[in-house]
Amino acid sequence: MIIHLKNNISITEAQSLAAKYQAVLIEGNPLVLVTTSKLKQADEGLQLVASDIFVTDTDIQLAGKQYIATKREIKLKDLSIGGSSANSIVITGPCSVESEEQIESAAQLCVELGVRILRAGCYKPRTSPYTFQGMGLEGLKLLDKMRSKYGLQIITEVRDSTHINEVIEYADVIQIGAKSMYDHGILRQCGKTTKPVLLKRGFGTTLQEFVQSAEFILSGGNPNVILCERGIRTFETKTRFTLDLCGVAWLKQNTNLPVILDPSHAIGYSYGVPDLARACMAMGIDGVLIESHPNPKVAKSDAEQQLNFDEFRALYPTLKSAAACAGHQVV
Amino acid sequence: MIIHLKNNISITEAQSLAAKYQAVLIEGNPLVLVTTSKLKQADEGLQLVASDIFVTDTDIQLAGKQYIATKREIKLKDLSIGGSSANSIVITGPCSVESEEQIESAAQLCVELGVRILRAGCYKPRTSPYTFQGMGLEGLKLLDKMRSKYGLQIITEVRDSTHINEVIEYADVIQIGAKSMYDHGILRQCGKTTKPVLLKRGFGTTLQEFVQSAEFILSGGNPNVILCERGIRTFETKTRFTLDLCGVAWLKQNTNLPVILDPSHAIGYSYGVPDLARACMAMGIDGVLIESHPNPKVAKSDAEQQLNFDEFRALYPTLKSAAACAGHQVV
Amino acid sequence: MIIHLKNNISITEAQSLAAKYQAVLIEGNPLVLVTTSKLKQADEGLQLVASDIFVTDTDIQLAGKQYIATKREIKLKDLSIGGSSANSIVITGPCSVESEEQIESAAQLCVELGVRILRAGCYKPRTSPYTFQGMGLEGLKLLDKMRSKYGLQIITEVRDSTHINEVIEYADVIQIGAKSMYDHGILRQCGKTTKPVLLKRGFGTTLQEFVQSAEFILSGGNPNVILCERGIRTFETKTRFTLDLCGVAWLKQNTNLPVILDPSHAIGYSYGVPDLARACMAMGIDGVLIESHPNPKVAKSDAEQQLNFDEFRALYPTLKSAAACAGHQVV
Amino acid sequence: MIIHLKNNISITEAQSLAAKYQAVLIEGNPLVLVTTSKLKQADEGLQLVASDIFVTDTDIQLAGKQYIATKREIKLKDLSIGGSSANSIVITGPCSVESEEQIESAAQLCVELGVRILRAGCYKPRTSPYTFQGMGLEGLKLLDKMRSKYGLQIITEVRDSTHINEVIEYADVIQIGAKSMYDHGILRQCGKTTKPVLLKRGFGTTLQEFVQSAEFILSGGNPNVILCERGIRTFETKTRFTLDLCGVAWLKQNTNLPVILDPSHAIGYSYGVPDLARACMAMGIDGVLIESHPNPKVAKSDAEQQLNFDEFRALYPTLKSAAACAGHQVV
Repeated sequence: MIIHLKNNISITEAQSLAAKYQAVLIEGNPLVLVTTSKLKQADEGLQLVASDIFVTDTDIQLAGKQYIATKREIKLKDLSIGGSSANSIVITGPCSVESEEQIESAAQLCVELGVRILRAGCYKPRTSPYTFQGMGLEGLKLLDKMRSKYGLQIITEVRDSTHINEVIEYADVIQIGAKSMYDHGILRQCGKTTKPVLLKRGFGTTLQEFVQSAEFILSGGNPNVILCERGIRTFETKTRFTLDLCGVAWLKQNTNLPVILDPSHAIGYSYGVPDLARACMAMGIDGVLIESHPNPKVAKSDAEQQLNFDEFRALYPTLKSAAACAGHQVV
Repeated sequence: MIIHLKNNISITEAQSLAAKYQAVLIEGNPLVLVTTSKLKQADEGLQLVASDIFVTDTDIQLAGKQYIATKREIKLKDLSIGGSSANSIVITGPCSVESEEQIESAAQLCVELGVRILRAGCYKPRTSPYTFQGMGLEGLKLLDKMRSKYGLQIITEVRDSTHINEVIEYADVIQIGAKSMYDHGILRQCGKTTKPVLLKRGFGTTLQEFVQSAEFILSGGNPNVILCERGIRTFETKTRFTLDLCGVAWLKQNTNLPVILDPSHAIGYSYGVPDLARACMAMGIDGVLIESHPNPKVAKSDAEQQLNFDEFRALYPTLKSAAACAGHQVV
Repeated sequence: MIIHLKNNISITEAQSLAAKYQAVLIEGNPLVLVTTSKLKQADEGLQLVASDIFVTDTDIQLAGKQYIATKREIKLKDLSIGGSSANSIVITGPCSVESEEQIESAAQLCVELGVRILRAGCYKPRTSPYTFQGMGLEGLKLLDKMRSKYGLQIITEVRDSTHINEVIEYADVIQIGAKSMYDHGILRQCGKTTKPVLLKRGFGTTLQEFVQSAEFILSGGNPNVILCERGIRTFETKTRFTLDLCGVAWLKQNTNLPVILDPSHAIGYSYGVPDLARACMAMGIDGVLIESHPNPKVAKSDAEQQLNFDEFRALYPTLKSAAACAGHQVV
Repeated sequence: MIIHLKNNISITEAQSLAAKYQAVLIEGNPLVLVTTSKLKQADEGLQLVASDIFVTDTDIQLAGKQYIATKREIKLKDLSIGGSSANSIVITGPCSVESEEQIESAAQLCVELGVRILRAGCYKPRTSPYTFQGMGLEGLKLLDKMRSKYGLQIITEVRDSTHINEVIEYADVIQIGAKSMYDHGILRQCGKTTKPVLLKRGFGTTLQEFVQSAEFILSGGNPNVILCERGIRTFETKTRFTLDLCGVAWLKQNTNLPVILDPSHAIGYSYGVPDLARACMAMGIDGVLIESHPNPKVAKSDAEQQLNFDEFRALYPTLKSAAACAGHQVV
């Protein structure tokens, strides 16, 4: 249940009510209580303090259509997705920042094609401690330089709580990776900023758990959460993961959050990325994230799944027509 | 390895060679041997009898791009998919034949919209023995009537070997269901006809096993196999299954067989079928199979996933524009 | 709901009642109706014809504890499992019958150790059409010879409906394999015999579906069904499958059928079979099925998972102490 | 490859070698380099600096049998597991510390039965932000009190990097939970202590990734890592997770780390815990972790899977006989 408190309720009173109803208090305007306790809407005490009451399914609260029936609009500086916009964004860039030369060529590709958001990782959640772990803060500074020089927005990943503040400082959109999406330290810190957060679904994560991770951020006070499906782990190993478009249909039907898809990580091989990217766009979603690299063969991570620049140039215009099938336009 | 034998080799000689090389003999023109034994292409005896030798991956033989580099063309009477056609077909109809009135209304919807293939099941592979098991032969006869009256092609499912001959007799395209695709009795019998076979992937079946089921039919002598992805079973249960479009990309990349998708069974709920059907079409595939029913609420099986006729009418034209994104046309 | 009809109800009347209640009729003594229709126990008509009424969960009927609260006893000639016996059986033998010499050495191992049931396959449900498919009827005859010569019971697998009658004729226990467990042709034919059936769980099959396959046999009139867990398909590929002992605990808790485990197929590698076999026995189950072969390296199928005879000799006595932990004895 | 450097190599020289070979340097005695670069053992430069060279599989290094052929011994104060001990430990306690009274009754149960290690969580990695999140530091202090008062060892979970130092300070054994096992912040900090770490496998984590998480800790300099299998996520939902004993067999075969199992989280329901716990012990593993609670019905988390004290009392002695089947003793 979500309770909008009346204007005359003070924060102190709201805190008492939160304790009484075992609720989380969101200190915005209005003050909001969220609780999974089984309260009755007709409860007299509740009626006295509430201006609006939203009865929600037990497993989706702030992110649910029962609370906000239409998709939330999220501003990415001068861009906007969700709301009534029917906008779809394209995000591209290499898996990792590897050097200034490499990231600058990626930035130039964005400028050439009109892509507005550059993505690259600096803190890599690698499986093995013995492989390239990312450039860290130095990488963030290179991304910052690309932003200034080329007017791009920057999205980059936080791996664990130890560098969350740096990522929040440098990124325009904070990416929480598939392996970090249960990390309360990250989620709670992202709840305290208002920067948009791209929350990736874990590859072993149910839709319910995924949406609950978003609830950590939303209930922390940050309404700007974008969901990202990037493939789940199944018994099929010919491809790296299995892109869950059925799940995307469920998210569109049941949540009020924009959804972006990442076909590159899903399949793990560049040959299938163009077909999958068009399929994603034809779903009527809010954007795609596609890895590209000036020379995928020498990439320090995820070499097999990154498109080279010519492949990306060939793909990009077809994304526009695929989006159009679903009544969307690429911005 | 696939060996095309020289014209002067007799069937008796070919049988001896098959025994020698632990190979399966396909008695067409040319005579073909298929073996997974590790033969050397340069083997002298082999060179004497072979006109062509194709070295294949161990796990794809007749269905592989290493044998036939382009997609096989499959004739469905006056329609054609695969080959150089870029055709995509739309197949629709109810989950089960329930009555003459019901199946006739489905046939009329096909005629109204220009859909050429009607699909409905007569032998239902139900999970429980206590639910509707299908109309059996009586249902096949109703489908036959619709074919005659409305000029439609008929696709219907074989559930087990006990009625395979009836299905081969009545269907224009034989559907092997997800639960029956390992059934050697069915596969071998389908290898002896030349009617097209729509082979569905089992929900617990790897891509490798799926293609091997096709090899049973192909090596039996029937070259007309169409693959159908219809969702695999994963940990996610908010949707019925998980449509594996990454797997479809793999099949397109590695096999020479046409691929059709079934989004209805994948998601299991009608709300997501239109978005998914468009996504499928944007993959550049050879067709989609979408369940529709005059009144889904009273359907005797799969009630939740069937579109009603108005929903299907709204979807149909958008499938054409989605196919067009991938350079395909709906026929 | 399961309804035991009163003694004075004729078969013709029972058939009418079955139609009325959309029920399956089991023609035993008593006559039994099973239905998933939502009938009320207090229904007047029902009370008139029923001697006993069992309200069951929608997804377990004849196999459920709500119908029969204790485990069913199943006679395997002079052996008995289930009921109040606390007996556990050990079944062994090679994956496939390959030759008389091979199967005779397996039979002799059984005699040496006191193992009473020999298992080997004649119709192999191979993934590929290009590998060894089993000896078929010739293999059945060799198994028959071992039964006569060594006094062993024989368990062998049916692959599809085309040879079900031969298997029923030659086997003491009919094994329905993991890939065939949805096959209505097989299930219905097994319902018409009273020979015990070892029903293996499909690797992509939920517990609910598994139990429903058993319901096909039980409702056909054969009460002698043994469930066999043999590993499910998961994302983990270092082992061939994942043995689902949590599922076994669920089956023990919710069904009235004996349960046997097959650790060999589950892990797919012989190194882990002894540890797993002891773990299975410590669950207090009704038996284990362990593959052994006189020379696993040259086996024509499943070479990696079969124990050699010395490994099996070392394992066998430890199974007794593992069974004893759970209050069971090996018979 | 793992390289033990000669005694005469200084740390500065070792750092240069690490850079040269793209290796991680472990500053112990001897100095050790670990690298996944493809070096040749016969390389002249390498031979000059190395006292020992271990060629390892690419995906297991310090944790592998190719490096240390026998199981590592890990000291838990006066207890010891692994090595040549054949010891198995039993760990119990409630899911969460809820109050002093509750945790003290759990401690008293340990004392009563001779269980030496008490486990309870203070930082709970809950799916939802709206449920009980754990007592935090206050809970750690209660655990500390139980240690002093009852002479028990304490194991408790770290959820994210923000409180890793507190957990390292208060715990005798640091538990890294299933949702946190990819967290580089936690793993690296655990590499800097020498306290034993119980590393749980993520429910969507492959065995390879699991062992690589251990490599983060081991290569950080902490040799005291214990692996814990606690169930993986599969398509089966009648139980909470699927305990992967095939995977445990693989870990025993391929790694040098002790393995402990957690049947409580795997099945998620108390009814199956005793059978599963005995099965685990019969695998010949190094311990089990079983949740128990003075009154499970009112537990603030995981109420359904915790044994009550009488159930635990009944189970405990049978664990000893199950361990004995595999030649182990409970300590």
